[in-house]
Amino acid sequence: MLLHSCLTTVSEVSVLLENIITSKDNPVIKLYQKLASSKKERLQYGLFVLEGLRITQDALSEQSGLTHVILTKQAYDKFGDELFQADLRDAKTIVISNELGNRIASTGTTQGVFAICRIPVQKELSSAMKENGKYVVLFGLQDPGNVGMIIRTADALGLDAVILSGSCDIYSPKVIRSTMGSVFRADIYIENDTEKLFSALERAGVTSSAAVIDKDAVNVVKCGFDGSQAVFIGNEGNGLPADIASRCTRKVIIPMHGNINSLNAAMAAGILMWELKKER
Amino acid sequence: MLLHSCLTTVSEVSVLLENIITSKDNPVIKLYQKLASSKKERLQYGLFVLEGLRITQDALSEQSGLTHVILTKQAYDKFGDELFQADLRDAKTIVISNELGNRIASTGTTQGVFAICRIPVQKELSSAMKENGKYVVLFGLQDPGNVGMIIRTADALGLDAVILSGSCDIYSPKVIRSTMGSVFRADIYIENDTEKLFSALERAGVTSSAAVIDKDAVNVVKCGFDGSQAVFIGNEGNGLPADIASRCTRKVIIPMHGNINSLNAAMAAGILMWELKKER
Repeated sequence: MLLHSCLTTVSEVSVLLENIITSKDNPVIKLYQKLASSKKERLQYGLFVLEGLRITQDALSEQSGLTHVILTKQAYDKFGDELFQADLRDAKTIVISNELGNRIASTGTTQGVFAICRIPVQKELSSAMKENGKYVVLFGLQDPGNVGMIIRTADALGLDAVILSGSCDIYSPKVIRSTMGSVFRADIYIENDTEKLFSALERAGVTSSAAVIDKDAVNVVKCGFDGSQAVFIGNEGNGLPADIASRCTRKVIIPMHGNINSLNAAMAAGILMWELKKER
Repeated sequence: MLLHSCLTTVSEVSVLLENIITSKDNPVIKLYQKLASSKKERLQYGLFVLEGLRITQDALSEQSGLTHVILTKQAYDKFGDELFQADLRDAKTIVISNELGNRIASTGTTQGVFAICRIPVQKELSSAMKENGKYVVLFGLQDPGNVGMIIRTADALGLDAVILSGSCDIYSPKVIRSTMGSVFRADIYIENDTEKLFSALERAGVTSSAAVIDKDAVNVVKCGFDGSQAVFIGNEGNGLPADIASRCTRKVIIPMHGNINSLNAAMAAGILMWELKKER
């Protein structure tokens, strides 16, 4: 196995290309596959995987802790020059056969660019709290596409933090893919302990709004979002548990039309984050 | 092949169950598979397919033109009573083996409920136009999940019409699935001719807003959406073509934060539809 920290010399490049990895038993490839398929392995190693040129570039430009950049021979020829303009820091580069690339790819049409990245150290939720902070709390969300899209939207709209509680693993390949790189830019906190969650919000004087489908809830257009605000979004199928909604400062509803009783959770979150953040 | 129009008698049910279809060469099964995989076949037959209990019930309750309801034996036992409470009209029911159900299912975990439905006759876009109408125009959108989510959101928020131009086939199984039944409730128009599209909007006095990433565009918070309004959403990767954006009454932008240059197309559409429709 060849591991390079930085490709600065012609000899290093040639060594890399003379040692193209073809074996599925290569330790980095085995690690990649374990991390891609198992939350337990991700937690154990403190690592997760990326696939695709753009997200790997995002990780490099946000100075996230890449440990390995893995390129197929084809990807090396196509994207190598571009990638190696970035500071790879301590990331090792390996080149693998196109066949092996297809084997570890999550889709049929892979770019052949993969990476392994360190899971950042979790920060205390209290450190997220700031004056007039705007937060979204994802409580029990399980769909990776929804969670990824919410993180992407939070980044685009400039939320101060995305807080996850009892939601799916944000380091799963599906979430990472749908964040489109925002996982490296958004400020993300995980607090699965409900007591600690509410306590951090309450201590910081944050008004919490439970997004519910309940005609007695306050219309989001009328409720006002001045000061520090957190909006709670519940599970795709079941919404917020009643005890969680009741513990929030208030319940809010996005008024809906006719005979549909629910927006998609990501879309509801997007509209609420928009209302939280938009200029008035 | 057994085709039943309505299961009202015990003898009909017993005939149905005595004739469980197991062959992949059954003509209804072959038709189902052709419609599921090919836009050309859908256009030729004027039919599309549904999969799942809820969306089949939605089709029944919205009196959409179902031609066939196809149930696995397991689904028949589990959901038959519930389904047959609806008026099946001229829909034929067939029962198939669980193995055949797994074969035609789009996912590994199918409910075993399938249907074939008539594509509604396309209406003239001019018939959609009404006083203070609010419309979204999907111009060149290609991601079925995005198109489905926008149709679902348009239904939830009460848009007057979703207009597609040069976008993906809304009768593909992926779009249908992600509309969550809203395809039967939202008012949907397809106008691929750009001249006819603008001409219908202009004749009806509709203000058209091109959603763009352009710092000279009007902030959506400031632009006002009184009267008849249409918002144009462009392709996921390329946005709106310059000539289409220029032909709109104005360009609008959702102000974004920091270093991300684009919301997901469905999310951008959702925020704009929310601004179009919300009470002020």
